[in-house]
Parts: sequence; structure tokens; C-alpha cells
Amino acid sequence: MTTNAYIQEHYPLLAAIDTPADLRRLPEEQLPAVCQELREMMIHELSQNPGHFASSMGAVEIVVALHYVLDTPNDRIVWDVGHQAYAHKILTGRRDRFADNRKMGGLSGFPNPMESDYDTFIAGHASNSISAALGMSMAAELQGTDRKVVAVIGDASISGGLAFEGLNNASNNKNNLLIILNDNDMSIDRPVGALGRYMTEMTASKGYNDFRNKAYQRLRRGGVIGDSGKGIVLRFNNAMKSLLTGQQNIFEGLNIRYFGPFDGHDVLRLVKLLRDVKDMTGPKLVHLHTKKGKGYAPAEDDPATWHAPGRFDEVTGERAKSRAEYEPLKYQDVFGRTLVELANANPAIVGITAAMPSGTSMSVMQQAHPTRTFDVGISEGHAVTFAGGLAKEGLHPFVAIYSSFLQRAYDHIIHDVAIAGLPVTFCIDRAGLVGEDGVTHHGAFDLSYLRCIPGMVIAAPINEHDLRNLMYTSQLPGHGPFAIRYPRGRGVLVDWENEMRELPVGRGRLLSDGDAPVVLLSIGHIGNNAARAVTLVKAETGVAVPHYDMIYLKPLDTALLAQAAARARVLVTVEDGTITGGLGSAVAEWLEEHSSTCRLIRLGIGDQFIDQGTPAQQHHLCGIDTESIARTIKSCL
Amino acid sequence: MTTNAYIQEHYPLLAAIDTPADLRRLPEEQLPAVCQELREMMIHELSQNPGHFASSMGAVEIVVALHYVLDTPNDRIVWDVGHQAYAHKILTGRRDRFADNRKMGGLSGFPNPMESDYDTFIAGHASNSISAALGMSMAAELQGTDRKVVAVIGDASISGGLAFEGLNNASNNKNNLLIILNDNDMSIDRPVGALGRYMTEMTASKGYNDFRNKAYQRLRRGGVIGDSGKGIVLRFNNAMKSLLTGQQNIFEGLNIRYFGPFDGHDVLRLVKLLRDVKDMTGPKLVHLHTKKGKGYAPAEDDPATWHAPGRFDEVTGERAKSRAEYEPLKYQDVFGRTLVELANANPAIVGITAAMPSGTSMSVMQQAHPTRTFDVGISEGHAVTFAGGLAKEGLHPFVAIYSSFLQRAYDHIIHDVAIAGLPVTFCIDRAGLVGEDGVTHHGAFDLSYLRCIPGMVIAAPINEHDLRNLMYTSQLPGHGPFAIRYPRGRGVLVDWENEMRELPVGRGRLLSDGDAPVVLLSIGHIGNNAARAVTLVKAETGVAVPHYDMIYLKPLDTALLAQAAARARVLVTVEDGTITGGLGSAVAEWLEEHSSTCRLIRLGIGDQFIDQGTPAQQHHLCGIDTESIARTIKSCL
Repeated sequence: MTTNAYIQEHYPLLAAIDTPADLRRLPEEQLPAVCQELREMMIHELSQNPGHFASSMGAVEIVVALHYVLDTPNDRIVWDVGHQAYAHKILTGRRDRFADNRKMGGLSGFPNPMESDYDTFIAGHASNSISAALGMSMAAELQGTDRKVVAVIGDASISGGLAFEGLNNASNNKNNLLIILNDNDMSIDRPVGALGRYMTEMTASKGYNDFRNKAYQRLRRGGVIGDSGKGIVLRFNNAMKSLLTGQQNIFEGLNIRYFGPFDGHDVLRLVKLLRDVKDMTGPKLVHLHTKKGKGYAPAEDDPATWHAPGRFDEVTGERAKSRAEYEPLKYQDVFGRTLVELANANPAIVGITAAMPSGTSMSVMQQAHPTRTFDVGISEGHAVTFAGGLAKEGLHPFVAIYSSFLQRAYDHIIHDVAIAGLPVTFCIDRAGLVGEDGVTHHGAFDLSYLRCIPGMVIAAPINEHDLRNLMYTSQLPGHGPFAIRYPRGRGVLVDWENEMRELPVGRGRLLSDGDAPVVLLSIGHIGNNAARAVTLVKAETGVAVPHYDMIYLKPLDTALLAQAAARARVLVTVEDGTITGGLGSAVAEWLEEHSSTCRLIRLGIGDQFIDQGTPAQQHHLCGIDTESIARTIKSCL
Repeated sequence: MTTNAYIQEHYPLLAAIDTPADLRRLPEEQLPAVCQELREMMIHELSQNPGHFASSMGAVEIVVALHYVLDTPNDRIVWDVGHQAYAHKILTGRRDRFADNRKMGGLSGFPNPMESDYDTFIAGHASNSISAALGMSMAAELQGTDRKVVAVIGDASISGGLAFEGLNNASNNKNNLLIILNDNDMSIDRPVGALGRYMTEMTASKGYNDFRNKAYQRLRRGGVIGDSGKGIVLRFNNAMKSLLTGQQNIFEGLNIRYFGPFDGHDVLRLVKLLRDVKDMTGPKLVHLHTKKGKGYAPAEDDPATWHAPGRFDEVTGERAKSRAEYEPLKYQDVFGRTLVELANANPAIVGITAAMPSGTSMSVMQQAHPTRTFDVGISEGHAVTFAGGLAKEGLHPFVAIYSSFLQRAYDHIIHDVAIAGLPVTFCIDRAGLVGEDGVTHHGAFDLSYLRCIPGMVIAAPINEHDLRNLMYTSQLPGHGPFAIRYPRGRGVLVDWENEMRELPVGRGRLLSDGDAPVVLLSIGHIGNNAARAVTLVKAETGVAVPHYDMIYLKPLDTALLAQAAARARVLVTVEDGTITGGLGSAVAEWLEEHSSTCRLIRLGIGDQFIDQGTPAQQHHLCGIDTESIARTIKSCL
């Protein structure tokens, strides 16, 4: 725990900055030292209390320069994917609470308007900053408020369709939006797509200035171009740049003035630059080159690993070993290895990830079958529609996307896959409560938003064997769209590598029998909490509670449900998803249809957004940890 | 009804084309005559059986040239928003069934793979063609199949984020995708955004060729550019074009070879062009200029009206009057006029539409308050996030989007509006079954996919007065996100202009009382069918069935529900939405929570996709027409 005394001693400049107004009172020449202290503080804090490291290290000078030049919070900074914004949190009144970053009751790991006036917009999902900032900028225009609005977006985020829609609309109305492109050529994984290459090549134009001047002078002398002022020269420069790099300036093509690229770590030059552009009218983009992990050698060398490195030794950079030998693998690892196993046997299988090869472990498939694996970048919608195209031609795509990000592809699931009943396996990662990433990242809604889609199969494994079995089942002939959801993190089996077998669609299983009048129905990994609760209740009261693992939410195993309802006075459903619309609702519908008299208690995520904390804390909050489930059972005995 | 004899007599060339192979046997010089016959047939048919007119008229030459040059169906044509594809339907074995276009049991108004092998992909929602075609192209590559894949996309559709994601990924892998940009500078309404202007200006570069040659020769002579072959020249040309038009070639910037713009109505030149480009490797885009409504003067003059003109007189072009004086207005008209009324009184109100100002009647607001109305083009995601930005700064956006298109903005509703509880009114148009547009256009899912979102208010008016009341209520202080869903088409009141009043959030009403043991609960406009069923049952049996109009799905009026459940043996819920997850589910959950013993029958859209037909036919199919509801009631008496 960092004490105020420690802060005073180690970060004397930061200690005196309670708000950005304090920062603005410093002479310019002290800004590099402020940046240095911010880096030292982040290294120190994050080595003990893990978080997103490399992005925030790379954005320090951008944060400092913006708060120095702009009049925040009256001026608005909109961060895109807020894990670049730790320095922003430290400078905006949250220095002393930074030790509680990502903890329950502490700071959110992402900007959050409910936490601070300096956090202008929710920023957990990529690519939303330009649209949101454009809205704010237009509001200032309509309200006659004198206000600068700046969106800070990374090179990977800007490739998302939403960012393009924002860019395409930016010049549509009168506004003075400033977009800072924080280009570190390295999102969580390397950026992909034409836009990624484009930005790389934009700086590779050696000798460009020479060429530009020569060509311009020559054309002017030859009378081809008249000297009609700065505008045409600027355009000419961009055209020439296009010619030399073999690329075109996309931003200028969208009527957004482009400046750059510049060094994003030269804080004094950034200050000068921002002063130059901030009062320009019309939408404009400043392109900055930064380095992920800047200022900490191990992170600079391996920014992917250091995206969120966990605990580490501040001095040596050695990362804390998190996995003991006897611990189960992560579901993600099991997914990756199993996909390769299936792909080896079934040549129709292809893999798709949207910028998360490491996070989802699609990287394992990528290594084994590079031509059969597609990383489409931050574009979940495209990922799903693209999968539809592949499936239409007889391939079987496995699309691995985090549950909360899959919300971006909702229409694409319905329109481009489900209507035609195409065989696509949706591997829904990070389903349920995800812990420290908090409110924007929970996979809370997928059971509900998928259940209403006709023809959709929805399943969730209780352990690694069933994950493998479900993946195997989904690629057997005859199925259409098939969703398999599983949580972030470790499974429950040390020996994960079973021989895969079909789990007949729409069939659950009796997990443990008993004669209590209370019967548990669970779906997915949270069923392990339910099973432990059954054990606990047995130990405490001697009563054996029957526990059914439904496996499939849709189609629901109504025979099993009938069996359970027939023996129960109370049915308790347990799911790691919103109780509105998921398993509990499906069971309620069935019980009502069949005029069952047994009572129903639905456990799951209530009708509220859940803040950061550990998964255990969040499960407890929602009443789906082992103890809470046991308490619910006992209250009905 | 068009007989075969009529076809033989009037369209002799078409009469001989049963499949595109027949077309390909014709000599090239007959193609203009084929185009002429296609136009005549479409005019004749659509004058009697309404459909999408102007788009399909504008795409005739593209359709003919593609089927003439490509080896369909082995080669794949992917239509983006399939209402440009009527000529395609006529040429691909559906000529004689075209009279049944958009009718129940007849042809789908959009391409549909279940209907024909020539329809390669579902095409009801804009901007998906590039992603789907890219998937198909990659599949051909992986499978070693010799196959051309072509996406045909309009200038409005290409501005959608999904299209950009597809473009951005098109050069990512080895593929030979051909994109035809059908640029008519006129989607349903005029295209907006930088991309729209960009394409307009691309042709406006008069004297461009002259300039290009002069400049190139001069630079070469001066030794600034070496003559390193065609590639650099092509790039040079594009750079010069950028310079002159003040624009950049966005497509080349994304590594997609660009050709054009060309005249999209010169079928012989199109054939030549397609022959030239079809075997080129790598992704490429051909930019064609076409005219919406081409070949029919009234439609050329007013393509917006003629997008879907209804019945008309083939000779005079006079459109059938569809509204008698005494008929109610459309909900859309009431929405538009009411929004202006509210905006006049509340300066915080702004309006947002995503390329549907006429369809939603946001055009009324646009005229009254042009600076407070935003048409963001086909970009529903941006529309919602942009609304979030506006709302964050104290404005109150009314976002009007069709229910099925709002699926594109699902994550944006959750992440960019609901988490922060921002006051945005979602005016969800085309909710419920929509009739002739069919499977892709039903607003079937919104009640389900919105109900799981914490803090979301969800309402549906039973008539125009309540639409107005709900709009009024939503903009009162203290509310967060507020969804109001209403169907396509006419309301039920001739005198729609009530004095608006607050409808307290979460309160329903008893619509008609009675003492029957069966109690009806409905939500929204479909409640009118329920009310008529109550009248019918009363007339037939003398029994008075109580009928509650819930108004709000969320929060649900549980006091009213308790009252209803207390008096009922059977509760019947009626909604124009999927029965999985909507009102029926909400009531089932409540009944289970309260151990109610009354039986529940849930009426709504079952767990299936519903094809085209009239709304009445579709209501009947789902058991929510007046007669079916009455039958259900009587079966419980």
C-alpha cells in the first residue's frame, strides 16, 4: 500500500498536483520530469497491483501535454479503450487512490464518468471515442459553449467500423473536433488490415521532404500549379506523400485535416503542437508515434506480454509466476489446443479472432494452421459476417470473441448467420462476470440476447472436458449456429485432455442425485459453485440436493426439466449471466406452460451493472458464490 | 396476374432466358434489348404489385453484364441490400414467379439463399456484402476452387462501418474479390458524410486527364520520377487525382485497386470492363455511376418517392392514392410532428436518423430544426454512440431507427448509453412483423434484447395518443435510456393530436373490465387486435374478458399484474415480438416468483423466422390476429 509519505518522497512533483490546474501552473521545462515521475509511479504501483501496463506507459506524454494545454475538465478528453489512461487518472485527483485501481470499491480500470468529471465517457470497448467526442463537440456548438473536445484513439481501435463511421461523419457538421491518433503499431496484438499497414508505411517515406519540395517547385515553375495559397500546398503535400508511399491519405480523403506523424514522446514538442492546432476550426487529426511500454525496458521489448503483465519485480522485470504445476489450465488454453486437434481432423474448420489471438488463444490455431486462421482486427461485426461467407461455402468457422464484445456483432449473428442457419461455432470467451476489468467487460447478456434467436444452439460447459465435447459436437454435420460460452480463467480439471465425444444437442445431465425437495439446475462453469454448495449443504445438514447440469440453454432439455420439476418443491436455477432472459427465464416459461406448482428461485446477475472487483467478490454480490447458493438452498429446506 | 402468354408476347428475349446460361448464349449486341425488356417487365409488374422500384431500375445493366460475363451460379454475386436485384431474380429462373414478389409463399423481395442457388447470401441489411463475399472468396482460395466472387454495393451502403471493416480486411489475405460500387449518389435518401461527398467529387475533376499527362511528363523529364512501370503511373494518377479534386483515393489507401468511375448504364462497355478485370488477382473495386429509376422518367425525376412507390399507372406514372381522408395517419407521421412539437418547447431535444429521414419521418424535424437534426447515414452504431456524446453534454437525443437495424447498435446501446444511464430516447420504428419486406426486416427481437439491459425503460404505445404521451414522458427530467417501439404503418385514431401528458413510468392501465376467468395482458399496437378479440368474444359468448394494456415492459407494472393474476385462472399475454424473452417471459418470471397458480398462455412471434406476406397474414401465422386471439380466449373459457 502506497502511503502519502511515500508519494511525497518519491514523486515530489506529482504530490503537488491535485488537479490538472496544478499541472498547468508548472513551467514547461518541468514537464519531462512530471512524465518521469508518472512512469516511476506506474511501474511501482502496477508491479504490486496488476493492471494494464504497456498502453498507459506509452501514453504518458500525451496525457501530460493534453492536460497542460487544455482547460480540463471544461475541455473534454475522450479516451478510446481507457487502459491507456492511468496517467490521466493520477493527474486528475486520483493519485492517492491509485493503489486501489481495479479493486472493489476502488478505481475503475477504465475511465468512468461516474468516478470523475475528468472521465468524460465510458471507454471499455474499442473505437467509440470519435463518435462520442463528435457528439460532445456538436453539443458545444449547439449550446454556444467554448469548449475543445479531443478524442485519443489507438491505431488498432481506429480500424473498427464504429471509428470509421465517426470519421465519416466528423466533417458532416460544424465542429472543431481534434483526434489524436496514438499509433504504437501494436495494439494488444499486432494490428492487422490495410489501415495498419498504411500507418506503418506513412512514416517510411524517406527523403519525402526533399522530393516534395523539388516536385512542387518544378510544377510551379512549369505553370502546372498556380500558387493559390496554403490549402493547395497542403493538399499537394498529401498527394505527393501518397505517391511516394504508394498510399493515399485516408483521413484527408474523409475531409479531416491531417498532421503528422510526430514523436509522441517529446512532451515539449507535443505541447507546442497542441497549442498550434487546438484553435483550428473544423475536424483535424494529429498522428503521433509512441512506443508501448515506453520507459521500462522489459515492456518495450515485449509489449504483448506486458499489455497486462500481472505482478512483477520492479527492478528485474521478472513477472510473478501465476500458475503452479498442479493448477488446471485456462479454458482459453484448452480451447486453443482443442481447436487445433479438431482442425487436424476436419479440414473444413477455420478459426477467426477479432484482434485477440493471445487473449482467446486463437494464436495456437494461428501457429498450427496459419492459412486457416484469420485475425480480422478490431471488427467483431466483420468477423461474424465473414464467418457467414466462409460457412456458406462449406467451411466451418470457429469464431472466438469475448462475450461483451460480441454485442457489437449482434445483428451480424442474426442477419448473416442465423437466418440462413449457417454452421458457425461461436466460442464466447469471458462469459459471465470477469472481475477486475469491471462494468464494461462482463459477459452478462449473451444468454439473453442469443436465446431469442431462432435456430440458435446455446451451450455452456461445466468443465474443460465438456468444452472439448461441445466444440466437437458443434462441428458435426447437421448443426447450424452453435454458441459455446465459457468464462475467463482456469478450469477445474488437471487432466483436461479427454477423448472427445458428442454431447447430444438439447440434453442435460443429472450431476448428483438426492432426495431433497429443493433441486438445483445450473448451466456452465458456475455449476461448480453449485456443486460445491450441494456438498456443503450435505456436510452441514445431511440433506442431499439433486443437481442437474443443463449444458444446453437452447434447446432446453425439457424431459430433464420435467423430471426435476416433478420431484421438486423448489427449483433453483444458477447461471453466470443476467437473470432476465437466461436460464431462469427459460425455466419460468416452461413451468408456466406446464402449470407446474413448484416454486422457482432464479440466481444470477441481477438487473444492475456490476463494478470492478475479483470474480469471487462479484459472485458473492450476485449470490452465486458457493456460500450464497448454499444459503439459498438451506432457506428452502 | 402476368400469364406466360403475356410474357411470350411482350418480352420475347426474357421468355427464352430460363437461366443465365441462356443469357450467355445471346450475342452481345442483344444485351441492350434484354435490358430494355427487363425494365419494361419491372415497370409493368411493379405498377400492379408494389415493391422496390428505383434501385432495381438503376441496376439492370450491372445485373445483365455480371451474369453475361461470369459463370453463375458457380461464380458468386453477393448483392448488398438486395432491393437492387429484381432483374437478377428475373434472369435466374424466377421470371414467371415474379408476379408473386413479396407475397406470402411467393418470392422474397430480397435475395435469399433458401430460394435460389443464384442468391448467395441474405441481403436485407446494408453493408454486409463485402465481408460475406470476402469469406466466400477466401473459401474458394482455401478449397482450391476456381471461382470469381463479386460484391455489388451501393454508395450509401459502403459508408457503413461493416463495409469499411470488410474493405480494411480485403487486402489482408490472398483473394481475388471484385467489388462493384453502384454509385447512384442517392440511397433511399441522399447519402451523407465525407465518403458521399468524396464520391461526388471524384467525377467532378474536369480537365483532370490533361493535367495528369502534363504533370507526369514534366516530372519525368525533370528526373523527379523514374519510369518504373505501370504501377507507379497508376499510383501517380491517383495521387494527381487527389490533388486536383482535393480528395484522396480511399480505396487505394486501403490497398484495393480502383477502376473508374464508368457509366453503369452502358451494358456493352460494362461487359468489356468486367472481362478485363475479372481475372486480375487481388482485391479490386470498379466504380460505376448509375441513375436510380433509370428508364422511367417519373422515377428518374424523383427517385426518393420512387424508392418503393406503391401501385402506379404504368403509362402516366400516377401513383395510386393510398390514404383516404378519414384514415389515420401513420405512426411515423405522428412521430415526426410530435418531435417537432416537443423540440419547440424543449431546446435540449435533438433528432438523429441513420439514413432514413423519410422512412422514420425524421425529415419533419429536419425541416423544422435543421441544425438540431442529424442524418448520420447508414451507421446505426455511430448514431447511438453519437447520441451518447450529445446526451452526456445535456442534450436529449431522439434516435429513430428501425427495430431490426437497431440490432447493429446493440453494444452501443449498452456500452455507450445504458452503463452511464444517459437520457436518450430510442424511437424504435418498424417494431413487430413488418409484412412484405420479410424475414430480414421484422422488428421481432427488440423487446427481448433490450429487456436484459439494466436501467432501460421499454414502452410501446397502443395508439397515437400514447406514442405522443410516451415521447413527452421520455424527455421529462430524471429518465435515462428510454425505448419506445411502434409498428410500421397507420395508427388507429383519426384525431391523433391530443394534449400530451406524462404516462408514469412502469404503470399500465385497465383497458376494459370484465368478470371472465381469462385475463388479457398486451403491450403496444397489437393490443388493438386483443381489444377487438375481446369485443368479438363478448359478442359471441356474452363474456367480458378483462384487458390490461401494460404500456411498459420495463419496469413492469407489478401492482397491475398482481391485480390481474389475482382474478385470473388463465393469463394471456399478447405482444408483437418474439415470445422468448419479451412480455410473456417477464410475466412468467413474475408469476413464478410469486408462486401464482394461474395458467399463462404467451402469444407472440414463435421461435422461427417469418417470411414475407402481409402483416395480417403474418399476425395470423403467429396467432396474434383478432380471430386467433379470440379463439385462444374462448378455448380457456
